[in-house]
Amino acid sequence: MDKKEKQNEKCNSPVYVHNPHLDALKDDILYHFSLGTGSHNLPAMFGDVKFVCVGGSPWRMKSFTEFIAAELAMEDPKSGYPNICAGTDRYAMYKVGPVLSVSHGMGIPSIAIMLHELIKLLHHAHCTDVTIIRIGTSGGIGLEPGTVVVTKQSVDATFLPKFEQVILGKTVVRSTDLDQSLAQELLQCSKGLNQFETVIGNTMCTLDFYEGVYSNVLMCHRLKATFYVIHC
Amino acid sequence: MDKKEKQNEKCNSPVYVHNPHLDALKDDILYHFSLGTGSHNLPAMFGDVKFVCVGGSPWRMKSFTEFIAAELAMEDPKSGYPNICAGTDRYAMYKVGPVLSVSHGMGIPSIAIMLHELIKLLHHAHCTDVTIIRIGTSGGIGLEPGTVVVTKQSVDATFLPKFEQVILGKTVVRSTDLDQSLAQELLQCSKGLNQFETVIGNTMCTLDFYEGVYSNVLMCHRLKATFYVIHC
Repeated sequence: MDKKEKQNEKCNSPVYVHNPHLDALKDDILYHFSLGTGSHNLPAMFGDVKFVCVGGSPWRMKSFTEFIAAELAMEDPKSGYPNICAGTDRYAMYKVGPVLSVSHGMGIPSIAIMLHELIKLLHHAHCTDVTIIRIGTSGGIGLEPGTVVVTKQSVDATFLPKFEQVILGKTVVRSTDLDQSLAQELLQCSKGLNQFETVIGNTMCTLDFYEGVYSNVLMCHRLKATFYVIHC
Repeated sequence: MDKKEKQNEKCNSPVYVHNPHLDALKDDILYHFSLGTGSHNLPAMFGDVKFVCVGGSPWRMKSFTEFIAAELAMEDPKSGYPNICAGTDRYAMYKVGPVLSVSHGMGIPSIAIMLHELIKLLHHAHCTDVTIIRIGTSGGIGLEPGTVVVTKQSVDATFLPKFEQVILGKTVVRSTDLDQSLAQELLQCSKGLNQFETVIGNTMCTLDFYEGVYSNVLMCHRLKATFYVIHC
């Protein structure tokens, strides 16, 4: 396969869910989005999505939508950017052009529920070549406040690059490596802008904000008041 | 100590946080509530709280407040039960008389952040003799749908009654036994009402709704369509 074919393949890569039972469902209810294949025309609503940006707070994800609409010159003075998930209070979702913006609450279980339903939504909507980016704030070690960290790998509370889950009674260990070429692309974009310091690094993700993240970071004895580093 | 003295002791039991540094803080900012000791008179706002009922959804916790206001004959036609945490979108909080109602989002990390700040709030407000109850829905095994389960113990994804956290680099294991006398009291209240089936049981709590809870319950081969059992 030559370079052009590889490029074409990438551009037509569908969001595919490895679940043979999914297409047999008469109505797949994405409960925490208040959406479903029986009640909504998901291809019409979401078929053009190419980027999904997710973050904890619903208010921030609405602000992000307003920001990205201006960046893409796709502002609509008549649109208040309605919450697509207005039928529920679990998550909020906004869309402008090819960019979907979704809140995920706080913590791994909350984002896991959202990602399950989001990936099924993108599959049902026949989306292709989708990039998903999480945007959020965190503390940082050895970095100036305001630095943007593009995460290459996330580590757990013991500094190991793994995510463990108990599925059907067995512990399943998953890799936490992220897309290295996307990370490099984001780094280059930031260099082009030259507006803020951007680095590639790791992000610690624990099961508690206070006793998990802070206590483990304090343990390093290297905390240098570098809060509100932006991770993506 | 006789029975009366024991009763008095219970009725004056303060909410005490075992952190010697807490009272030295000039301003303790309860960030995810958008409240703080420097910005709010917490004893005036919350000093009379005796019951805190928590649940995932903000909308449900508002409905619960409206319900409990009617039950306590403390309805105020002029009050729309304003969200005390309106300055943030992380949690929602409502109060009617001695009952505080707080949302906690989905998952252990989300409820952990809320409980950290809630317990500090009750401490700063000089609350005494407070009972905290979580109300929520879940699947159930071997129970009729609609059954209320008063949890005596929660179990993790491997069916063990423990909660593990990594704090300062070490794994800390905590008990998940709940207040047995409160469980009995709630069971007796329900028997007095005689409106729905109520049992005392265990609740499984995992780190993911889809791959955690459902897969582990399915493993039991005993699922009997008993969804929407209410746990408290």
